[in-house]
Amino acid sequence: MLVSQLETPALIVDLDVLEQNQRRMMELLRPLGVALRPHYKSHKCTAIAHMQIAGGAKGITCAKLSEAEDLIQSGIEDVLIANQVVEPAKVMRLGYLAGCCRLSVCVDTLENIRQLEAAAAAFGSTIHCLVEYDIGMRRCGITTVEEALVLTKAILDAPHLSFMGIQAYAGQLSHEEDFGVRSGEAAKFEGQLRELLSFFRENGVEVAEVSGASTGTVELRKEGTVYTEVQAGTYLFMDGAYDRVGAGFEHSLFLLSTVVSTTEGRVVCDAGLKTLGTDQGAPVFVDFPTAPVNMSEEHCTAHCESHCKVGEKLMLIPGHCCTTVNLFDQLYLVRGGRVVDRVPVTSRGKSR
Amino acid sequence: MLVSQLETPALIVDLDVLEQNQRRMMELLRPLGVALRPHYKSHKCTAIAHMQIAGGAKGITCAKLSEAEDLIQSGIEDVLIANQVVEPAKVMRLGYLAGCCRLSVCVDTLENIRQLEAAAAAFGSTIHCLVEYDIGMRRCGITTVEEALVLTKAILDAPHLSFMGIQAYAGQLSHEEDFGVRSGEAAKFEGQLRELLSFFRENGVEVAEVSGASTGTVELRKEGTVYTEVQAGTYLFMDGAYDRVGAGFEHSLFLLSTVVSTTEGRVVCDAGLKTLGTDQGAPVFVDFPTAPVNMSEEHCTAHCESHCKVGEKLMLIPGHCCTTVNLFDQLYLVRGGRVVDRVPVTSRGKSR
Repeated sequence: MLVSQLETPALIVDLDVLEQNQRRMMELLRPLGVALRPHYKSHKCTAIAHMQIAGGAKGITCAKLSEAEDLIQSGIEDVLIANQVVEPAKVMRLGYLAGCCRLSVCVDTLENIRQLEAAAAAFGSTIHCLVEYDIGMRRCGITTVEEALVLTKAILDAPHLSFMGIQAYAGQLSHEEDFGVRSGEAAKFEGQLRELLSFFRENGVEVAEVSGASTGTVELRKEGTVYTEVQAGTYLFMDGAYDRVGAGFEHSLFLLSTVVSTTEGRVVCDAGLKTLGTDQGAPVFVDFPTAPVNMSEEHCTAHCESHCKVGEKLMLIPGHCCTTVNLFDQLYLVRGGRVVDRVPVTSRGKSR
Repeated sequence: MLVSQLETPALIVDLDVLEQNQRRMMELLRPLGVALRPHYKSHKCTAIAHMQIAGGAKGITCAKLSEAEDLIQSGIEDVLIANQVVEPAKVMRLGYLAGCCRLSVCVDTLENIRQLEAAAAAFGSTIHCLVEYDIGMRRCGITTVEEALVLTKAILDAPHLSFMGIQAYAGQLSHEEDFGVRSGEAAKFEGQLRELLSFFRENGVEVAEVSGASTGTVELRKEGTVYTEVQAGTYLFMDGAYDRVGAGFEHSLFLLSTVVSTTEGRVVCDAGLKTLGTDQGAPVFVDFPTAPVNMSEEHCTAHCESHCKVGEKLMLIPGHCCTTVNLFDQLYLVRGGRVVDRVPVTSRGKSR
């Protein structure tokens, strides 16, 4: 089957480009001795997680317990939930899952550490903990080295928890378009983390892992970086938002759409807010890259002159790959214009 | 089970309020002799479509063929696809489905009319057609009464098509916050449509239905309106965007979320861009209605002082109900704080 024979809207992954992006990421990280623990949130597809592991990733990062469950049940054996899990029934399930693989989670309160210890004890498992250190994102995490040490000591004291290290994600920086600002801020955060590591060392605590970073900051990592793991996700697909950052990866994710109306000065397609995540900007039409685009729920309009006809198929680059993938139940994998497989978006809608 | 015992994020529908909104809509429309053909896009849930039919709706409007299929297979017998269907395999399926119930669709080109006739002929069915007249939305539809008449005559000449009337949806007006502007523009469009009806009458063509309008304009309809059907959808749930328009319906849709972090000046919850449609604005925390809110993929932060604790559950009003519902596989139906049913979002992700 040809890509052009798919009914639309259809979400398409170009496997040749995806594989090239995976290789490029490993080429960037290997010389630094930094591991890749790619973020599942960008594809939510266990088939692709396996490709990442085969391509050199150490394990997988995810956002929610329900995603971790999907990964573990698909045979991924090293999973990090890069957030706090606080609801009692979820914490208990986490304790169970930690007995099935190497499972890590972020913590930022003593109360949560107590909950996790009780859950792991109930199942005789070990939960690996990363202390989340807020380096300016102002979301979760603690903000002082002293608090970080208090939490770390509580983890070290808990018989069923293991101290894995520090989670430090500067999400506010990922999409900073000015390279100078991005680079300067990243260096500042590395400095902050280095201070934390010295403070820990002075207090007799070794930190095995510093996990974080994104597609937008991976190029900024230099020899001697404090990060031991990079949690980038978008590098594999790329999108309109990361294009503006110029991260050097290529587009492998496209939305195939059908023209439903044409008029002087506009082309209207059958894909809208229910098939394209626009929280980081509108999609870009591959054939009209500079055309202004506006969206409604099921339509997308490019304002430009064209020779398009109703029924013609057009490709779009999503503004944000992660929120786009989360709208689809399946992805079409293609090579050279042919469909070679269809895989489920395993964890679509898994936000618990 | 209590609502507060649900794991989060969970999408909640307050049935008492939903039923009250349905009654209010019928009270607004009945005196005008205008029928309700509510838009499925707001809930995508066949169980709720049946409630609307039981509550006085004439039939259901939807956006896509795949939604129409779900409605028809759920026993809804009068379905309008308020868009053009142009892909050849879809047009053929439409011809088949038109033999299973009263199925209507919008058209705006002669070529599409020819396709529809061929499909209906192949199955010996009748497809009901609405000519889409663009009253300023600048998306699909024709823009002159002469073109409308040409299309209508082509429909009347096609043995397997039936001319149902005119589709005229002023989507650009639905969220206009200034009542004066909204009211003036709505009156102007009614005038345009009246001219079209006169022109058709002079040419010997009677128009049975004028279908369109939204939650935001339903209150503007007066006795003698040209509209015979209203396609409102949001009235049933309401959301942050329609609040600003003040349409007079109450909120029945809420997102239940858990606090995962608190700090001086902020409360962070476990619901983000993957559980809340933000294309018409951020969600509103019921407990902190004036707090500025920012969002990331799996988090939502209210900037305010509070006594919230980690693990506490909070309710949010989605910024846009339609794109929020499309993120969830199920809705919890509640009365007085108790869960009374869980229904699938039948057509979640059905964008074909």
